[in-house]
Amino acid sequence: MTKSEDSPAATRKTEADWIASLNDGRVVYYEGERIKDVTLDPKHRVAIDHSALDWRMAHDPEPAVRELTNTSLNGNVVSRYFEPPTSAASLDRRRQLIVDQTTRGLGYLVFVREVGTDALNGLRLATRAVDAAHKTDYYDRVISFRDDCAKNDLAMGMAMTDPKGDRALPPSAQAADGSYLRIVERGASGVVIRGAKVNITACPYVNELFVLPTRSMVPGDEDYAIACAVPASASGVVIVSKPLPAEDDEFDYPISSRARHTEGTVFFDNVFVPNERIFLNGETEFAGAVAEGFATWHRFTGLSYKSPMADMLVGAAALMADYNGLSGDKVIREKITDLVIYAETIKALNTAAALNGRAGDDGFFYPDPVASNLGKYYFATNYHNCIRILQDIAGGLTVTGPSHRDLQNPELRQYVDEFLGGREGVSGVDRLKAFKLVRDLTATEYAGTWLVATLHGEGSPAAQRLAINRAYDVDGMRDWMAGVLKSIEV
Amino acid sequence: MTKSEDSPAATRKTEADWIASLNDGRVVYYEGERIKDVTLDPKHRVAIDHSALDWRMAHDPEPAVRELTNTSLNGNVVSRYFEPPTSAASLDRRRQLIVDQTTRGLGYLVFVREVGTDALNGLRLATRAVDAAHKTDYYDRVISFRDDCAKNDLAMGMAMTDPKGDRALPPSAQAADGSYLRIVERGASGVVIRGAKVNITACPYVNELFVLPTRSMVPGDEDYAIACAVPASASGVVIVSKPLPAEDDEFDYPISSRARHTEGTVFFDNVFVPNERIFLNGETEFAGAVAEGFATWHRFTGLSYKSPMADMLVGAAALMADYNGLSGDKVIREKITDLVIYAETIKALNTAAALNGRAGDDGFFYPDPVASNLGKYYFATNYHNCIRILQDIAGGLTVTGPSHRDLQNPELRQYVDEFLGGREGVSGVDRLKAFKLVRDLTATEYAGTWLVATLHGEGSPAAQRLAINRAYDVDGMRDWMAGVLKSIEV
Amino acid sequence: MTKSEDSPAATRKTEADWIASLNDGRVVYYEGERIKDVTLDPKHRVAIDHSALDWRMAHDPEPAVRELTNTSLNGNVVSRYFEPPTSAASLDRRRQLIVDQTTRGLGYLVFVREVGTDALNGLRLATRAVDAAHKTDYYDRVISFRDDCAKNDLAMGMAMTDPKGDRALPPSAQAADGSYLRIVERGASGVVIRGAKVNITACPYVNELFVLPTRSMVPGDEDYAIACAVPASASGVVIVSKPLPAEDDEFDYPISSRARHTEGTVFFDNVFVPNERIFLNGETEFAGAVAEGFATWHRFTGLSYKSPMADMLVGAAALMADYNGLSGDKVIREKITDLVIYAETIKALNTAAALNGRAGDDGFFYPDPVASNLGKYYFATNYHNCIRILQDIAGGLTVTGPSHRDLQNPELRQYVDEFLGGREGVSGVDRLKAFKLVRDLTATEYAGTWLVATLHGEGSPAAQRLAINRAYDVDGMRDWMAGVLKSIEV
Amino acid sequence: MTKSEDSPAATRKTEADWIASLNDGRVVYYEGERIKDVTLDPKHRVAIDHSALDWRMAHDPEPAVRELTNTSLNGNVVSRYFEPPTSAASLDRRRQLIVDQTTRGLGYLVFVREVGTDALNGLRLATRAVDAAHKTDYYDRVISFRDDCAKNDLAMGMAMTDPKGDRALPPSAQAADGSYLRIVERGASGVVIRGAKVNITACPYVNELFVLPTRSMVPGDEDYAIACAVPASASGVVIVSKPLPAEDDEFDYPISSRARHTEGTVFFDNVFVPNERIFLNGETEFAGAVAEGFATWHRFTGLSYKSPMADMLVGAAALMADYNGLSGDKVIREKITDLVIYAETIKALNTAAALNGRAGDDGFFYPDPVASNLGKYYFATNYHNCIRILQDIAGGLTVTGPSHRDLQNPELRQYVDEFLGGREGVSGVDRLKAFKLVRDLTATEYAGTWLVATLHGEGSPAAQRLAINRAYDVDGMRDWMAGVLKSIEV
Repeated sequence: MTKSEDSPAATRKTEADWIASLNDGRVVYYEGERIKDVTLDPKHRVAIDHSALDWRMAHDPEPAVRELTNTSLNGNVVSRYFEPPTSAASLDRRRQLIVDQTTRGLGYLVFVREVGTDALNGLRLATRAVDAAHKTDYYDRVISFRDDCAKNDLAMGMAMTDPKGDRALPPSAQAADGSYLRIVERGASGVVIRGAKVNITACPYVNELFVLPTRSMVPGDEDYAIACAVPASASGVVIVSKPLPAEDDEFDYPISSRARHTEGTVFFDNVFVPNERIFLNGETEFAGAVAEGFATWHRFTGLSYKSPMADMLVGAAALMADYNGLSGDKVIREKITDLVIYAETIKALNTAAALNGRAGDDGFFYPDPVASNLGKYYFATNYHNCIRILQDIAGGLTVTGPSHRDLQNPELRQYVDEFLGGREGVSGVDRLKAFKLVRDLTATEYAGTWLVATLHGEGSPAAQRLAINRAYDVDGMRDWMAGVLKSIEV
Repeated sequence: MTKSEDSPAATRKTEADWIASLNDGRVVYYEGERIKDVTLDPKHRVAIDHSALDWRMAHDPEPAVRELTNTSLNGNVVSRYFEPPTSAASLDRRRQLIVDQTTRGLGYLVFVREVGTDALNGLRLATRAVDAAHKTDYYDRVISFRDDCAKNDLAMGMAMTDPKGDRALPPSAQAADGSYLRIVERGASGVVIRGAKVNITACPYVNELFVLPTRSMVPGDEDYAIACAVPASASGVVIVSKPLPAEDDEFDYPISSRARHTEGTVFFDNVFVPNERIFLNGETEFAGAVAEGFATWHRFTGLSYKSPMADMLVGAAALMADYNGLSGDKVIREKITDLVIYAETIKALNTAAALNGRAGDDGFFYPDPVASNLGKYYFATNYHNCIRILQDIAGGLTVTGPSHRDLQNPELRQYVDEFLGGREGVSGVDRLKAFKLVRDLTATEYAGTWLVATLHGEGSPAAQRLAINRAYDVDGMRDWMAGVLKSIEV
Repeated sequence: MTKSEDSPAATRKTEADWIASLNDGRVVYYEGERIKDVTLDPKHRVAIDHSALDWRMAHDPEPAVRELTNTSLNGNVVSRYFEPPTSAASLDRRRQLIVDQTTRGLGYLVFVREVGTDALNGLRLATRAVDAAHKTDYYDRVISFRDDCAKNDLAMGMAMTDPKGDRALPPSAQAADGSYLRIVERGASGVVIRGAKVNITACPYVNELFVLPTRSMVPGDEDYAIACAVPASASGVVIVSKPLPAEDDEFDYPISSRARHTEGTVFFDNVFVPNERIFLNGETEFAGAVAEGFATWHRFTGLSYKSPMADMLVGAAALMADYNGLSGDKVIREKITDLVIYAETIKALNTAAALNGRAGDDGFFYPDPVASNLGKYYFATNYHNCIRILQDIAGGLTVTGPSHRDLQNPELRQYVDEFLGGREGVSGVDRLKAFKLVRDLTATEYAGTWLVATLHGEGSPAAQRLAINRAYDVDGMRDWMAGVLKSIEV
Repeated sequence: MTKSEDSPAATRKTEADWIASLNDGRVVYYEGERIKDVTLDPKHRVAIDHSALDWRMAHDPEPAVRELTNTSLNGNVVSRYFEPPTSAASLDRRRQLIVDQTTRGLGYLVFVREVGTDALNGLRLATRAVDAAHKTDYYDRVISFRDDCAKNDLAMGMAMTDPKGDRALPPSAQAADGSYLRIVERGASGVVIRGAKVNITACPYVNELFVLPTRSMVPGDEDYAIACAVPASASGVVIVSKPLPAEDDEFDYPISSRARHTEGTVFFDNVFVPNERIFLNGETEFAGAVAEGFATWHRFTGLSYKSPMADMLVGAAALMADYNGLSGDKVIREKITDLVIYAETIKALNTAAALNGRAGDDGFFYPDPVASNLGKYYFATNYHNCIRILQDIAGGLTVTGPSHRDLQNPELRQYVDEFLGGREGVSGVDRLKAFKLVRDLTATEYAGTWLVATLHGEGSPAAQRLAINRAYDVDGMRDWMAGVLKSIEV
């Protein structure tokens, strides 16, 4: 099942076909203006081309690349992201695929495959429990929708985070109806939903959007307990893509000019969702399980793509140290080792999450939730410190040096050549390039977005702490110690 | 001496006069193009207007403001930055002035006064030692230049950091001559210097640039051991202002659209410096003392302006918690307390540096070097963590929400109103404003520049560690413990 | 007032007289057995001799030492701890005295003077507020008792911490009456108190015990809102001294064999307290102020004595590095610098607390509460890390090496000489001594007690966080930022 | 091979037989006095009984326990520690066995099995390389010795750490010959060794001592490059057991009175080692590989036994919070979560090290070296912080409360009952027990020894940093980034 027997992947879309599929009449706004065709917008096109990597690799002339990227399912060659995870080894293949693609993507994952299959994998587990309790058929709908997405080679996004309003209150107790997406009408063939979802990576260029509850719910929250899938082009879906900085010069922005996603807000203005696309509908007691089922998978994804990002921090630090003549400095090397420890801890926890995965009762394997949550928590809460270390090693020229346009002025170029070189053999221009690299990783809007995304992507650190705590038997350890003391006579 | 007797400050320049003084034919490049008159360039003008605060306050209708801003020297009303620091109380007044101006400046100091008087104060101490050893008259030159700057109400900048090339080697051992600014010609009336200085805040809009050695030097480095002052408009001075992001919308960039400095590189292409402006010339063994003398003062300045910045982080966190309905959440309050501890530690060390100041042998007081270095080190190495805490409290909408232009589209504005509000009473627009505030403090290019500047401004953390260590008697403590053990008979 | 005019301190007790005063019939238990005379018990005698330092110094042949130790009050020479703090300089003298005595005391303060005058100074401030609200005369009682303690040269301790029972409940809501000390009878001439106080340093060898409320209280807690002073020999006072480890060999325990205090529990079994020794009696709304008034002073004391302790950590680390041949190792030096930063931050915050002290309305100066709390919090929460650094530098022999008795076996002594030496010139015995020093500072019961005492002495870290937060205007900063945003039009 | 077919383990020694084997004439000193028979010395007997757990479990009436503890090898039932690790699952069984035994052992591993098999497993890998390079037959000797140890059910210890003298110099450059153990004579049938090894856990009660080089060596160090095995009773072996505190009361020392090892120094006073017990002899270039081979295995062991220790910290914290009525306090729960994260990170890295193990060229599996080193480094550098958290939660009574003997005095017992109880339902005695538990885990000599052992056991943190760094391709990452920049044209 994990082998791609049908190379050269005739049944997978080409890059061009997939990109063309995005020009489907969807409503996308950028800086207040409607974009007719996102595939023609230069800023979005960088991100779309980045996402298209999975389709490019699907048809790569190199068999090993196709083998890594594709698998077969129901007789079709499909993206390996749809490989049913029936073993720990399968989880590890998924990990390797994400690592490989993120490495090619200069630290940015493809995203439009991972997040959707994370949702499908999470829903598969959660819906079995709902079905058992409520005699619903959500599980079959999930499987069927999964097969469709695989066969049609669709890009998927995740609309999960509600605006939340007053975070101390449940959805049904909010002052404003709009703080959580909700069902405003229920009919025989489906429901109508209204609301906003925020922090949605890649929303302008996916085919399908999953809508999941963002938290556990209580009785009274029935209208907010909705999980479903909605085409990005569905009537009533309004996508607002966030402003993108002018990071298009390769010299000034060596990473973000080439590796980019966009984020945005999606408004659901009375969108009809037919029954076969609904995976939870009012069963409030399962809202938390649906959210957590996705989150565990997605944190495993986060751990996987964070690994090459951490490697890039090491590489940039080592390059900067080299150019500054400090490769042999013991204190600098200790700082680089701190970055190495960051990278390797992520890898080790990622590997643990895969290899220690366990089968659910339908035979699917799930990444170890504790390792997945620990890993996400670790990389999120230590990232800012790594940024500090890299900036510390690099120095102030990271943010103050001349730009690409300055270099195009021959007089200034001459000054740069004469004055700004590094250790013997490193020209001023090469050293400036390295500073721009560090800047793009640590001090541009792209970098700032990553600071926030590293914390809050895949759920905020508080969510991981809760999950880790819940999985651990604190009371059992307390009772163990109480028992040890009980045996002592006084 | 500390009273400003001559209000309303007739002898201080007006804001307009000072700004006009910047249109003096100086050579400034921006993105490769020569800027004719920096005062007319909109991006630079924001920074110039920001710097002009000291001149505005000098003529403020409110006497208390003038009293704070001005002092009298040699019969003239001058900027209080030129107040000779003859007591700990005087140091504390300087601290208070910087705190006040930086608070008005939304976290950004005036800069064009502080750094220059830091240099003058540092040079005053260091040159006495040089004069004593070498029978030079640098001290008198410093005093005379100080009086001129005060009387003529000049803005001053600091050109200190050399490009350094191979950091493991001293200036004279570099592969390239250009890695450190150097004297290329010595004449009876002065010297000619050539080289680059980097990381120069405010360089396009100061009247005078101090040139100081960036490190201690060794015999052989004589041509690099130069301290002097150069007009920004001197022949051969080429200023390259770094690219500034498009942070001009007040909604999207509530801080950086209004409070800004620029940084840049200054090339000295055979600039002649007359003797009366030279404060060190080849006395290599004093290069370190000159650098350190300035650094201690400037770290004290850094501590002073960092205090309001830290207060802003607390304020932004508290505002965000309030808008999200989490003011009463105990865990959120603990996080805010961590920010409070950051702010208060900076204040306490800043106060300690002032009140524990001591007189040098010329009667001038100097801020306590240990507290100054500790304070700089503390705020530099804990800043990234504070940014993390603020982002953690705020959430993902910090970087993904709609922009000002989106709000100008009525349909999108309606969605924002309906969906993005906070706790009861907080509209979607107000909540978005708060997110933009957090973004501007933590995730824009402005914020990224601060991350680097907080580390490397006023010298890198390694420099503070060295200074702290040098001031502490490690060997004495070792010998104390050895002595305690020696008394034990075996 | 701060000068000791009456040297050689005729009106101060001699060491012998003070020690004799402790044999007063007090009830002290040790390991379940009543100790008749604590001054004859060898384990307690080490601590008593340690405490006696202040009396020894009072009569030191060296005038400068007497000058430091004594002052005059109401015509008598008294301990300088009773100097009325009428200026910031006076606070700083107190700081210097504690630093000096703790340095002589190998890291352990005299304690029996500091804590009591901290109480008297704190009560002075707090009782003025009580008197103003309740027309009581507590302030006069405090002054009168202060003068008595000074004139009679008494050692004082502090009985503050109640056992607390259920920490989530106020005193009057506890399941057991005994969880907080309380008034069980009120009469015309005084009250009868019953309860326990825990964590009482030096309780077996003080003359007077202050009893203060441990927390803020609510209406209903009237019987628990009691502040008073009780002689250690009063009827009903039962002192239980905690077990002391056998740390009496100078080689094996180079510090704790010589510098020691004991802690213990004091039970108050219906102890009568006459009115003139009562400083709060039922005014629940002031319980918190009384506790905090003492705490601020005592945290300032904590900061003062912690400074030499931190110096000892640096000294031990430097000695160990030296003996192991690693003085020149850059990475080891960075670790020692981390310890230096710890020591210097404590000193700087301590100095800030003194120099930034302010006068209350009775003219007494009080140490800056923010710096005092910050300082205590800093040293408490970073101490374990410093212990780690010191152990890291030293290595495993710290806890596994041969003992003093082993060295008395000639065969083993020979092995130690042959095999266990350090860098050239460091004998096996000297190196072992250094390991024992590190062990005594980091890994004995003495060290373990310090780990806990550093956290909880002078109040737990949570108490400091509360105090720091309370002193900071979080809401003001929030409103500042809200105001900045308000001015932006959308 | 992993099944124990021969229950009830007839071929494994009984506990009594193994203990009897320790009375073999060995030379053990304690506090300078020779101990005739360690099995009769009460302090050592606690440790011996602790170690005997593996022999007790071998004959446990419960088949599952025997199954866990034993395996079969060459037709004999042997301790599972001798199971040849031929798969990742086998590594994980070893992990589980250590976790199980350490849990039964209240946080202390059996040790006398783990460390020796770690050595044998490490030597197996390293000696193949030596044999290949030098045509030696060390590998066969290792296998043969391994079989002997297994069949004879021997306890083994590790003598690795040399006193080192001047750590900046290699063995052969030391001022004193004694700083590293060395070969003083080479003969046809074996060698004679002389020197000391320090930090040797369990040395008084093992049957065999491994002697391994402690570091990599250079040409000239031939006499120091020795790996071998020596019976503890061999002529010339002098064991000096370190002083043990009087931690024998179960109430006062609930853990260390029952779970204990001893450490010590072993002097090798011209000990003859026959050829068949020599595994490295002068091949200096392999000294580092031998050390590292053992270290990786032993760090994996360390990770395994640290896991239950971390659980105990959580349990003690939760118990204390419960008794103090703070189970529901959000801030306390966050602190407990920090301990949970510590425990779970150790488990996850431990699991990763097992499941990601790889086969060497002889088919043996080795734990993943990166995860093993990361795990050791993680638990070592975060342990002191966890101790701080536990002490912070518990409070000062941890170190100041009455003792067991105090409770035996009826009057004092009554006070404890009346005053020292916790939340409703928790008696004073029970609460005191919990404080003693926290004390024993954090503030006794036992706890202090753990602070050091956690850092330096299995090698100091610096050794792990080196190993982690060496396994990571820093240069490769640098070149990746350089390549990314190279493609950018200027």
